[in-house]
Amino acid sequence: MRVLVPDLSEFRELRVEGVELGFFSRDEAPPGNADGLVLWFASPGLRRELLGRPGLRWVLTLTAGIEHVTRELPPGVTLYNAHRLHDRAVAVHTAAGMLTAARGLHRFRDAQRAGRWETTMDLGTLDGKQVVIWGYGHIGKILEELLTPFGARVTGIRSRTPEDERDAALSEADWVVLLLPSTPETKGIVNAEVLARLGPGAWISNQGRGNLIDTDALLAALTSGHLGGAVLDVTDPEPLPEGHPLWAQENVIITPHIASTTADLVARGAEYTRAFLSEMTAGREPEGRVEAGQAY
Amino acid sequence: MRVLVPDLSEFRELRVEGVELGFFSRDEAPPGNADGLVLWFASPGLRRELLGRPGLRWVLTLTAGIEHVTRELPPGVTLYNAHRLHDRAVAVHTAAGMLTAARGLHRFRDAQRAGRWETTMDLGTLDGKQVVIWGYGHIGKILEELLTPFGARVTGIRSRTPEDERDAALSEADWVVLLLPSTPETKGIVNAEVLARLGPGAWISNQGRGNLIDTDALLAALTSGHLGGAVLDVTDPEPLPEGHPLWAQENVIITPHIASTTADLVARGAEYTRAFLSEMTAGREPEGRVEAGQAY
Repeated sequence: MRVLVPDLSEFRELRVEGVELGFFSRDEAPPGNADGLVLWFASPGLRRELLGRPGLRWVLTLTAGIEHVTRELPPGVTLYNAHRLHDRAVAVHTAAGMLTAARGLHRFRDAQRAGRWETTMDLGTLDGKQVVIWGYGHIGKILEELLTPFGARVTGIRSRTPEDERDAALSEADWVVLLLPSTPETKGIVNAEVLARLGPGAWISNQGRGNLIDTDALLAALTSGHLGGAVLDVTDPEPLPEGHPLWAQENVIITPHIASTTADLVARGAEYTRAFLSEMTAGREPEGRVEAGQAY
Repeated sequence: MRVLVPDLSEFRELRVEGVELGFFSRDEAPPGNADGLVLWFASPGLRRELLGRPGLRWVLTLTAGIEHVTRELPPGVTLYNAHRLHDRAVAVHTAAGMLTAARGLHRFRDAQRAGRWETTMDLGTLDGKQVVIWGYGHIGKILEELLTPFGARVTGIRSRTPEDERDAALSEADWVVLLLPSTPETKGIVNAEVLARLGPGAWISNQGRGNLIDTDALLAALTSGHLGGAVLDVTDPEPLPEGHPLWAQENVIITPHIASTTADLVARGAEYTRAFLSEMTAGREPEGRVEAGQAY
């Protein structure tokens, strides 16, 4: 079985019996047929080219999201994704952002850079806070386990949650955490109407995809003082361009789409690939198979 | 029973049968004898004067630390402190600082203020991290409960922990969290020798008292690159003066001694006082009695 994988030192060291590896960089791949493809760190152009290789039977994307692959996946090719590789770090990152906001660490960092010892009483914890997790899947369940000892009360919203139930949860939320994937249905799902439904002072955390939120509506809800603040690992546009008004909002905490990043991510990705290929060559079904019509 | 309490609106509303309340501001108190004294937000001068009032039988300090009271407590006066009022917020604040450091949120905040979308792989979680809690009491136990779901492995060090055991724990620590009180024995307990014992890249969090750490030794260990960083809610000197070199360290995260602060702290303090006075007037022993010789 010939499999193309990213050209990273951790992948160069992989040895799996019955598998011949080929290595692609961001923009270039060796020629020839491939039975399998482990997609990661490829440019959109190379990705398109690789997905069109003759003989391709399966693709493993080492991401959690799949929308960049499904658009171009040829019929009959099986897709796998790698939730487990990312879920825990995203949940930890989300909890970190919420605690930063609750303890005012972003404001104290600003004061620190100005060399100012400025105390305030306007601080809190997560005790008794109503946290709505919108997109309650693998990551959401881990996040709930992390937040419960902090006294947070978690409500999960799924796509099948009735609208009135969803709206009732949103109106009582101290925190709304977005962990939705990007699909035609979720684009702009947090619009002015949804933001107005939140109680005054509520915070929103977007760890899903930037286009879940209508950025203009978010800015309006922030500058009016209706929202308490926002923690954004993803933005629309992304990357957030220089001079964009979101940068300057004091109670917006921005990270550059790194919620799932850890220093050992590539090593973990290589190990995930090794285990995946071992299952595959042993004739077992590896985890993460994306069913037809599954959006995430 | 006449009891002097802080002159704050939440305390003005207190009603406890059998208790006549008097109210002191930061610098002034009504004249006359007092059976009990609820100390909070008094200037050092007023504190000294109040502790010398004739007839005083007990003092409740609404702080966790007691060193500011024990120095001036007349013989025969019973002292109570209010751990429970502060412990949870301090534990939450400590966890927040650790997660901020692990997820690089302080560095991303700096980039945000400069309007820069700058990604990095140098991020982590607390999974598998060895966390040494030095001063393992009420707060430390709560902190352990908060950190365990994040995969941290906690080791508690107490004053009775044998020195070789302590040193072994320190040398393997990814994080050292200081929750010690300020006593003659703990002053400067984290000196150059202790810092050198930590492994390269270890982080230190001081949520106890500023003078636990030798600041010059800390700065040396930070600028040499030996330490990964520090999270400081307390400093020496405190407040940290303008232009102090600690302000400018990228991997030092400074908050202005607010670990136990929450917006509802005064309300919680008043409620704590009400419950305390009810116990006292009912002839029961309230919680928090400080035994003779107890340092914290």
